[in-house]
Amino acid sequence: MRQIRIGLVGGGWMGHAHASAFQNALLAFGPEPAVPVFEAVCTLSSDPSQDVKDTFGFRRSTARWQDLVIDPDIDLVDIATPNSSHAGIALAAIANGKHVYCETPLARSVADSRSMAEAAEQANVVNLASYNYLRNPIQSLAKKLATPDRLGEIMSFRATFDQDVVLDPSFPFTWRMDRSVAGTGALGDMGSHAISLALMLVGPIHQVSGMVKTFVTERPTADGAATRRVENEDIAQFICEFKNGALGHFSASRLGTGRKLGLTYEIQGRNGAICFNQERMNELDFFRQDEPQEIRGYKTIYTGPEQPGYAAFHPIPGVALGFNDQKTLEVRELVKAIAESGPVLTDFRFGYEVDRVIEAVMQSVRSRGWVPLSEIE
Amino acid sequence: MRQIRIGLVGGGWMGHAHASAFQNALLAFGPEPAVPVFEAVCTLSSDPSQDVKDTFGFRRSTARWQDLVIDPDIDLVDIATPNSSHAGIALAAIANGKHVYCETPLARSVADSRSMAEAAEQANVVNLASYNYLRNPIQSLAKKLATPDRLGEIMSFRATFDQDVVLDPSFPFTWRMDRSVAGTGALGDMGSHAISLALMLVGPIHQVSGMVKTFVTERPTADGAATRRVENEDIAQFICEFKNGALGHFSASRLGTGRKLGLTYEIQGRNGAICFNQERMNELDFFRQDEPQEIRGYKTIYTGPEQPGYAAFHPIPGVALGFNDQKTLEVRELVKAIAESGPVLTDFRFGYEVDRVIEAVMQSVRSRGWVPLSEIE
Amino acid sequence: MRQIRIGLVGGGWMGHAHASAFQNALLAFGPEPAVPVFEAVCTLSSDPSQDVKDTFGFRRSTARWQDLVIDPDIDLVDIATPNSSHAGIALAAIANGKHVYCETPLARSVADSRSMAEAAEQANVVNLASYNYLRNPIQSLAKKLATPDRLGEIMSFRATFDQDVVLDPSFPFTWRMDRSVAGTGALGDMGSHAISLALMLVGPIHQVSGMVKTFVTERPTADGAATRRVENEDIAQFICEFKNGALGHFSASRLGTGRKLGLTYEIQGRNGAICFNQERMNELDFFRQDEPQEIRGYKTIYTGPEQPGYAAFHPIPGVALGFNDQKTLEVRELVKAIAESGPVLTDFRFGYEVDRVIEAVMQSVRSRGWVPLSEIE
Amino acid sequence: MRQIRIGLVGGGWMGHAHASAFQNALLAFGPEPAVPVFEAVCTLSSDPSQDVKDTFGFRRSTARWQDLVIDPDIDLVDIATPNSSHAGIALAAIANGKHVYCETPLARSVADSRSMAEAAEQANVVNLASYNYLRNPIQSLAKKLATPDRLGEIMSFRATFDQDVVLDPSFPFTWRMDRSVAGTGALGDMGSHAISLALMLVGPIHQVSGMVKTFVTERPTADGAATRRVENEDIAQFICEFKNGALGHFSASRLGTGRKLGLTYEIQGRNGAICFNQERMNELDFFRQDEPQEIRGYKTIYTGPEQPGYAAFHPIPGVALGFNDQKTLEVRELVKAIAESGPVLTDFRFGYEVDRVIEAVMQSVRSRGWVPLSEIE
Repeated sequence: MRQIRIGLVGGGWMGHAHASAFQNALLAFGPEPAVPVFEAVCTLSSDPSQDVKDTFGFRRSTARWQDLVIDPDIDLVDIATPNSSHAGIALAAIANGKHVYCETPLARSVADSRSMAEAAEQANVVNLASYNYLRNPIQSLAKKLATPDRLGEIMSFRATFDQDVVLDPSFPFTWRMDRSVAGTGALGDMGSHAISLALMLVGPIHQVSGMVKTFVTERPTADGAATRRVENEDIAQFICEFKNGALGHFSASRLGTGRKLGLTYEIQGRNGAICFNQERMNELDFFRQDEPQEIRGYKTIYTGPEQPGYAAFHPIPGVALGFNDQKTLEVRELVKAIAESGPVLTDFRFGYEVDRVIEAVMQSVRSRGWVPLSEIE
Repeated sequence: MRQIRIGLVGGGWMGHAHASAFQNALLAFGPEPAVPVFEAVCTLSSDPSQDVKDTFGFRRSTARWQDLVIDPDIDLVDIATPNSSHAGIALAAIANGKHVYCETPLARSVADSRSMAEAAEQANVVNLASYNYLRNPIQSLAKKLATPDRLGEIMSFRATFDQDVVLDPSFPFTWRMDRSVAGTGALGDMGSHAISLALMLVGPIHQVSGMVKTFVTERPTADGAATRRVENEDIAQFICEFKNGALGHFSASRLGTGRKLGLTYEIQGRNGAICFNQERMNELDFFRQDEPQEIRGYKTIYTGPEQPGYAAFHPIPGVALGFNDQKTLEVRELVKAIAESGPVLTDFRFGYEVDRVIEAVMQSVRSRGWVPLSEIE
Repeated sequence: MRQIRIGLVGGGWMGHAHASAFQNALLAFGPEPAVPVFEAVCTLSSDPSQDVKDTFGFRRSTARWQDLVIDPDIDLVDIATPNSSHAGIALAAIANGKHVYCETPLARSVADSRSMAEAAEQANVVNLASYNYLRNPIQSLAKKLATPDRLGEIMSFRATFDQDVVLDPSFPFTWRMDRSVAGTGALGDMGSHAISLALMLVGPIHQVSGMVKTFVTERPTADGAATRRVENEDIAQFICEFKNGALGHFSASRLGTGRKLGLTYEIQGRNGAICFNQERMNELDFFRQDEPQEIRGYKTIYTGPEQPGYAAFHPIPGVALGFNDQKTLEVRELVKAIAESGPVLTDFRFGYEVDRVIEAVMQSVRSRGWVPLSEIE
Repeated sequence: MRQIRIGLVGGGWMGHAHASAFQNALLAFGPEPAVPVFEAVCTLSSDPSQDVKDTFGFRRSTARWQDLVIDPDIDLVDIATPNSSHAGIALAAIANGKHVYCETPLARSVADSRSMAEAAEQANVVNLASYNYLRNPIQSLAKKLATPDRLGEIMSFRATFDQDVVLDPSFPFTWRMDRSVAGTGALGDMGSHAISLALMLVGPIHQVSGMVKTFVTERPTADGAATRRVENEDIAQFICEFKNGALGHFSASRLGTGRKLGLTYEIQGRNGAICFNQERMNELDFFRQDEPQEIRGYKTIYTGPEQPGYAAFHPIPGVALGFNDQKTLEVRELVKAIAESGPVLTDFRFGYEVDRVIEAVMQSVRSRGWVPLSEIE
């Protein structure tokens, strides 16, 4: 039986989630075409990696990712660390011929993202940027509907990603608010997911005009002993034009009062429209203009076995999937791609395209005008 | 008993709606402090004004608004005509000391709006720009909640106004698509209402960056014999900053697939948030951050007698008001203001402020950059 | 122009609502085929009928309905009084050849209802029992869909009517809680409306098994000086079988915590299903089993011009109607029926059929078993 | 490290789900206080148990459950087979001192359920009836709110469980429609879950009056070669009175057109109300009567870390759990109970109480009258 030996970098919450996903992909889909092996785990700092090691039965652990990326017994390097370390680890892993799986956004800078994508392509290794919201089976339905045949010409795309988890100004400073570690704030951390959905469902973006703002400018440190300045934006938004002519709007807020995981979008085409809200991730709202007018209306479609991936979890429709199941489906795609040398939906090139949009928005903020994507390399 | 003698200009659908509102305001609130008298009606073209004359018992009709505005037996000139004629009629009426009630947007140009506001103020006549969505009693609740005490500092305001009634490209050309008659398209026709809600709930806007687009560029004429070029935008959107620092986004589309009267907004403050959708005009969604976390959530409040105006229609909560009741409440406010020489919520000055935002957006579209409202007179 | 001279009995809130409806039907539909004339109004007790007389311009008022029903200048007797007086007034009016319009439930006892229906039929006068919820244009769509062609064989009908307006036990005793005036409580007052919808949409009921309960057994009198025993039920519910084989459930509560006008139903057929909630009276939810499975789902249809009656209020879909517009449409039907000697949807015979169900439920409560409708005369 | 050696009976879909739950409980909660060991799996017929054996790494498999229940290396017998075999396996396992975990309903007859409960209590083994919907963390919040302090006296409980998965009459006959294997139809299969929620949230039921019906009376066999008579009900419903005086209604339909996993309930108390729908399993709707009237309304609370069990999956609120996570939480409770000799929420005694209600409803159907639970042993 074919094995994929995993070297996990980052033993914190995200590392745990990745390892669980590998385990669950095996349970849901079985051992074909390959089984994951928990070979080694690396902790960068004070991550509770011992727990991850024991819980999943990793054979070894190390404190240096540099050791892990050259380990001949590792096939896949799984990067579940803060943004600033992604590029270094990924480039080293690729240089050693490893397949790579990386959390998003890929990097703090678009230059780093491009290097990662180019290196992975030249090395011909499987490379996957974790945009797991796209793996929700109901997004497959969205993709099938957001076509000229169904929605017709797309005229408008609006998306939000609001969360109020750090709304309280006494919520402590985290690495996500530190520009040197995270890069942008809400735009990269949350907006990137909205952008990833747009790129999949509508296509490339032509030009953007954006704005950002920080409302909570100081936060206490985790130990409560001091305060630190928040270095990146709490809220970002931009309007845009897609290459296909559609108008777009995106907003992302980590102070999104009243919203828990408010990743939403609405697509309006000439023949139909679609709405989605991650807080109700098992539903897609769909409107068909071609129905008789007297019974025309938005309908709510629940997730079900017709959507790729769902049937591995439940035999009947409407049985809720959870967030973790998205991650399981992403890992399943990764395992198949490695075993069968196939493509993935969100490779590093895709991650780079997302990061180009983020960079264009930030340039637009600085120049106070429209920035075409063609100016971003 | 005090009488207010009405001279209605425009005997079409909107004129009918205005006259009905005067009648219903009388039935709902009684004859104090004044009763409306249907004195004269004027038709500009082929409006079916004879019907309006008969249905409401207008004493006289005329084909020339010029006669009506100088008629000594008229107290109030009610302007329910296409946009391009508003300014001429209103200025003449004001010059003759008439009170004025005008459909919106006030005018095709911000210069005309300003003239109307200034003239009305100098003449000291009651002047009301019809932003009737603000009269929905539930907006009084929204206004009460959108304060520092309740929502706290406002961080974000997002609004849409989507309607798909002309989505079908075979829907005929109307005066609303003729720049010389209507001015802007979706922005003025629909976006103006979203802006009016924002000005009431959040306050003045500081700067804007916008874009517009026409998707259906040709439409058949009403008789089907020819086609005409559509001269203004089908979709408009802009991002903005409010004077109080909040970020804003507005979009308006007359090709708003799937939406019937999709005037929506979401306000996020540091301590709470509000959502509204005109398609469910009897509901307001409200989120309070100050509740215990385990039971925190968005709640749906139905319209009821606690909200000013509602009790004139129903003694108990949750009994739906309709769109026409908004108009009735607006007319009630107008009647009281005339009888008691009081202020109104949306006078011409307010209408001018809405039109300044529209003008700023259009300048921003042309200059491809941010336009501060301070540059718009 | 044909006139219908109205004699209104009951000058309270409901009388005001009836008179407004006559006025608005005229404004919305015009003077054809007849115009209402406010001839006379009668007050039974301390109703503020003077206000109604003045507001609507009734020519005369009287303190004795006995005078009104024999008045040769009256064509239609409109009964807007508490339940116990309906039968006496209606029978006298019918005996004098008047058309009759009566609030619901028609009477305190099914025997009275039957007498009223039989008398009206023998006298060949137009007779209408006010089940105005059936006049919501969207119920016309429901009726069109609830057919063998669309929903297929009906399997299940569930309805509720919950209101929490008297939930507070300090809310004073009203005539609706007095058995000698009102008859039953929530069952007749509110459940009757749910039953009326069922009879229209599903058809006759075959047998019932029910239960009732009073939770607030004492209430203060309106003046606060004493308390009175509540004599009828706060909550009633019953299960039933329809003649066509469908299973049914109805519940009605005037202590319906959290519900304002919670008149809801769900119909499940072999080929489709429908849901409705009066709190969102401009929407109907419709499910079609015959769509491709991958896009099957409940859709929300907004009210619009395709539905009979709507276009008299608005030219485009999704512009909310209010509760009062239902009443206007009912009165419009009545005016047409009188002018054109046509049928009405909810005549006294229909009202009697509703009352038979209520009687069967009360017998079932007493006998603690199933009661077939065939036993109720 | 303490181990719990599992003997799984039933290697089909449900067996797979049970084994996955044990694995995921370990990943989510870690190895304390015990780790599950996949010791043996037994297949009753043609279940694909080989797959389950391999996927989870069971050490052994057997074709005879009689061998498994006496195996000294097994601590827990996990019964994931059709209803008719539950009692035999469970009683044998208990007789051999094994802990037992059993799918629901516990048995085809209330006598069998009682035997199972009594045997388990006498043997003092841990025994858990799988009512996994109660393990949804949001039900813990419901339970906390459905108390005299919060909701006040409960007046009404209404529940449905509708699924349309077998609505199509060409869907083949399954063992669930075979009375000798399944016992009742929709009532036991689906209604039992609604009843389990009621018993937890409202308390014991005093008396019931019910009805059942089969609409699809014949179905093709799985191989399509013949048809078989459907032997139990497609739809069941009953009204009831709870011991605490609340009125209740339950309906269950496996032909529940338009509903996928439509397990819903609404609880109305004197001071508040709660609504739930399993199709949106991460939300609970809550209404508080004690808020100021002008902002009173139903609110939507999302699942989050305040609810027991949630934090093992996600650190922040609003990240959707899925159906399988309910099962994981149930198994976690079982593992803890075995390791710590503690109680479980839904032991066999609880399962027996659910089955008593089902039996009372079926007696009521036969007697066409009310049946008190005191008559059911």
